[in-house]
Amino acid sequence: MSERISLDELNGRDKAGFVAALGDIFEHAPWAAEYAFDRRPFATVSALHAAMMEALRVRGEAEQAAFVAAHPDLAGKAARAGAMTAASVSEQAGLGLDRLSEEEYARFEKLNAAYRARFGFPFVICVRRQTRDAILDAFERRLGNDRAGELAAALAEIGHITRLRLVERVEGPGLPAVAGRLSTHVLDTHAGRPAAGVGIALYEVGASGRALLCRTVTNADGRTDTPLIAGVPLRVGRYELEFGIGAYFATRGLDLPERPFLDTVPIRFGIAEPEGHYHVPLAVTPWSYSTYRGS
Amino acid sequence: MSERISLDELNGRDKAGFVAALGDIFEHAPWAAEYAFDRRPFATVSALHAAMMEALRVRGEAEQAAFVAAHPDLAGKAARAGAMTAASVSEQAGLGLDRLSEEEYARFEKLNAAYRARFGFPFVICVRRQTRDAILDAFERRLGNDRAGELAAALAEIGHITRLRLVERVEGPGLPAVAGRLSTHVLDTHAGRPAAGVGIALYEVGASGRALLCRTVTNADGRTDTPLIAGVPLRVGRYELEFGIGAYFATRGLDLPERPFLDTVPIRFGIAEPEGHYHVPLAVTPWSYSTYRGS
Amino acid sequence: MSERISLDELNGRDKAGFVAALGDIFEHAPWAAEYAFDRRPFATVSALHAAMMEALRVRGEAEQAAFVAAHPDLAGKAARAGAMTAASVSEQAGLGLDRLSEEEYARFEKLNAAYRARFGFPFVICVRRQTRDAILDAFERRLGNDRAGELAAALAEIGHITRLRLVERVEGPGLPAVAGRLSTHVLDTHAGRPAAGVGIALYEVGASGRALLCRTVTNADGRTDTPLIAGVPLRVGRYELEFGIGAYFATRGLDLPERPFLDTVPIRFGIAEPEGHYHVPLAVTPWSYSTYRGS
Amino acid sequence: MSERISLDELNGRDKAGFVAALGDIFEHAPWAAEYAFDRRPFATVSALHAAMMEALRVRGEAEQAAFVAAHPDLAGKAARAGAMTAASVSEQAGLGLDRLSEEEYARFEKLNAAYRARFGFPFVICVRRQTRDAILDAFERRLGNDRAGELAAALAEIGHITRLRLVERVEGPGLPAVAGRLSTHVLDTHAGRPAAGVGIALYEVGASGRALLCRTVTNADGRTDTPLIAGVPLRVGRYELEFGIGAYFATRGLDLPERPFLDTVPIRFGIAEPEGHYHVPLAVTPWSYSTYRGS
Repeated sequence: MSERISLDELNGRDKAGFVAALGDIFEHAPWAAEYAFDRRPFATVSALHAAMMEALRVRGEAEQAAFVAAHPDLAGKAARAGAMTAASVSEQAGLGLDRLSEEEYARFEKLNAAYRARFGFPFVICVRRQTRDAILDAFERRLGNDRAGELAAALAEIGHITRLRLVERVEGPGLPAVAGRLSTHVLDTHAGRPAAGVGIALYEVGASGRALLCRTVTNADGRTDTPLIAGVPLRVGRYELEFGIGAYFATRGLDLPERPFLDTVPIRFGIAEPEGHYHVPLAVTPWSYSTYRGS
Repeated sequence: MSERISLDELNGRDKAGFVAALGDIFEHAPWAAEYAFDRRPFATVSALHAAMMEALRVRGEAEQAAFVAAHPDLAGKAARAGAMTAASVSEQAGLGLDRLSEEEYARFEKLNAAYRARFGFPFVICVRRQTRDAILDAFERRLGNDRAGELAAALAEIGHITRLRLVERVEGPGLPAVAGRLSTHVLDTHAGRPAAGVGIALYEVGASGRALLCRTVTNADGRTDTPLIAGVPLRVGRYELEFGIGAYFATRGLDLPERPFLDTVPIRFGIAEPEGHYHVPLAVTPWSYSTYRGS
Repeated sequence: MSERISLDELNGRDKAGFVAALGDIFEHAPWAAEYAFDRRPFATVSALHAAMMEALRVRGEAEQAAFVAAHPDLAGKAARAGAMTAASVSEQAGLGLDRLSEEEYARFEKLNAAYRARFGFPFVICVRRQTRDAILDAFERRLGNDRAGELAAALAEIGHITRLRLVERVEGPGLPAVAGRLSTHVLDTHAGRPAAGVGIALYEVGASGRALLCRTVTNADGRTDTPLIAGVPLRVGRYELEFGIGAYFATRGLDLPERPFLDTVPIRFGIAEPEGHYHVPLAVTPWSYSTYRGS
Repeated sequence: MSERISLDELNGRDKAGFVAALGDIFEHAPWAAEYAFDRRPFATVSALHAAMMEALRVRGEAEQAAFVAAHPDLAGKAARAGAMTAASVSEQAGLGLDRLSEEEYARFEKLNAAYRARFGFPFVICVRRQTRDAILDAFERRLGNDRAGELAAALAEIGHITRLRLVERVEGPGLPAVAGRLSTHVLDTHAGRPAAGVGIALYEVGASGRALLCRTVTNADGRTDTPLIAGVPLRVGRYELEFGIGAYFATRGLDLPERPFLDTVPIRFGIAEPEGHYHVPLAVTPWSYSTYRGS
């Protein structure tokens, strides 16, 4: 991330300086920044983003569609040919969309083509809020929308994309919510205290397998020193936490069978709100456990 | 299973008839039946089995070891060469030990050789009470025993093997416990009633993957019409139940996110007591669940 | 309960005999039995009851109201003066409505008077399905109904009353549901087995205090040898189960503080369905517990 | 509380000033402060307290007993006659020991007399860490100790008393732990979010009834704005939390019976560690709940 500009400084800039700073937040659409310039000053970064989104909403459907049409395909030729904006390149790369297998690339190409044929503009989704599997699910689901519904869906996604970009660019009060949080907590309800030293693994679960996101160990309070995920949007998708409960209780001198009832305890869950707080605790004995979505 | 003989009839037989019926319960050891014959009549099948086991226990260590030595290797040359007793053939086949890959066969051969070199008799285990992975675990663990401990372990396993054989052969009161039971129950604590129509899959979890044992669906009482496993010993091993909770709640008209928090709920657990009763219920809402070992 | 008549015998009786047997099931209304006589034979006791209720439903509102008006007041002068039918006497006595304090009697008198002034007939409720507090709650709530709604409520209660009377009088297939069940189960999730020997007390919780209904102790399966309540309707009301968890864990040789975290564990719950099955289990460690409505 | 002295200032004082400040921390025993003076300077308040306790521990049993004997009876004549130190007066008044009924006063008198007869010194306990019922329990239990055990118990209690007094008198780094914390959290696992607006009452449960300690309501995070108890020692005793679950779910537009299964949910628990952290959360649906001791 390059250096951020303060909202105060932006409020004081002339039009050229203002648009130089924000002209690329909306893909190929410096007019969103120009529209916002006329509404200075902004008390919060949220208000600045709302003004730029308003530039979009006040346009007619044809102009909105043309604006959406200026976005690159997901995992498309533009990515391969180096013809995307820097922000799009970085966003798509974060999910590995620039490193697909030939088979995956073919699947995206086919969906892109079907989508363009149906709606006349490319499929837009805020990839930083999605797992790869969730994108494919959304792609197929949104192919069933009517055109008005799908244009609205595309603009909503552009709202997410530009909010994320704006927060990285501008510093100031009233930042819009762009980060979620995933955390856990292990309670040993056999001993009535936090379970310290429990090994935890977090996986993303995809259609074709699962990928390790991180490994960690609970501290004296039964929590992890830092949240499992924080400071970024959670990616919509399916996840699995694995807790090394057998190993934990094996160290506690209990009279348990050699082959324990509970060894690795898996908790599989879906994330639907990228800016949400998901607290997924485990209360556990050698013979029972419970979990819930906390916050 | 061939037709069973009643305990009453056995009690009334002459020695030749008695030994004809029971002479092969202990591998290559009709003397166990002869020893029991002298202690007729038996009020229960358990007492008959105890008498046959006593025939073994009263012998010296050398004779016991010779008796153990008459057993076939697990997954060994005897199996391939067709040189085992019919009972052993059937027992080993039940676990697929006659259909190992070359690699697995080689692993068993190596363990068999190491074991024989150390103890002078083959590794004996009641395969009908074990998963394949549990046998390999036990094999490696028991290689660390001293000879006296290992001879005792082998005799204990022969107790399990012969008890299972005897129950299939003889009908009568006081059958020894040879069967375990695995059952489940799904409670919908969101609606306060049993969860009907929940799809359930039971897997055996091995070192190299998992194998589907059965699929079923809960009835109006949230239970399965028949236990998941019953009437046979449970196999020591690791298992996973999967509950189709997302699909269940999707039919109930709730206001849930498109990507539910809970979809397939896995419960992974170990079985250590082949003749035990394992009840593994699930109390679940769209946002929480708990489980425990019941009975 | 006097000796029961079989449905077969009833089906075969002449009109006088049929009405002699059933004429008092509906309060002062032998015509309900007469109406049913013309619809013989009945395959089930439920069908017989349905026919008698139909005798009521086919009448006009004025006749229905007159029929309801022939019922005695709850805890009223008729009870004190000995002017009620034998069945009403026994039903009201079961709840102690014949042994009210002067204050309670005055409260009922006042409610009875207000109710009669509003609707022109007495308040009817199936007392065998209610606690005393639930009757007072229903009394005050139903005073807010309009006359049509209240007449319907009275007829529904008469359906409950006569169903209970009929089941005691007639033996045969297809008995209508008149009994509920309350049961419990204690799981020791610290040890992974049923909790045996746990003392349990069941209380009815009223507005002015609570009354002990029964004391029992869990058996080896963590259950009670007989359900806490069975074979009769559950009384709508509020209840409390108390489990002697501190005493139970004190016998198990655990390292717990002298003043345990959990000692007597109370579970307070309402019963709304007199013919329902309420299973209220407790899964407990010295440091945690959970409960739910099962069935 | 009068103004506190800083540890730095104490470290710099001469003997007269030092003893003037701390001479009454130990009841009628300025020598504890004198002993500590010779061990200046202290890096922490804990170290200062340890030095004063050492003054006690290095004395012989006779002197220790004489020191204990200088303490006032609990709820005794000294309290009535105004002959106690100011600190003792305030401590005993906090628990209402100066406002006992004649019956309670008589019970204390009897226990005091029995105790003095047995041990030759009065019963000493840190009343700020106890409920009245817990004091009576401890009184009866400690009457069964032998003299050496009981002298040790009295000195341990004097450690608690003086630690509390010292923390109120001296400001500085390394304060010894004198406060506990009781908190709660309500999770609505029916809706998958914190339960806001749940009414909570906390009671102390005594032998003869229960006393309301506080009422509060959960905030948007399902927690209370301040802990239920904090900043003081928890009193050893028995407590009950009541959660207004029926009222909470009644506002949520669910299809629940008029008489809900769960209305007021009580959680009864014991506190054994006055300086401990007790977190007692409730995860609840209209049909189920669970709780545990967290921290």
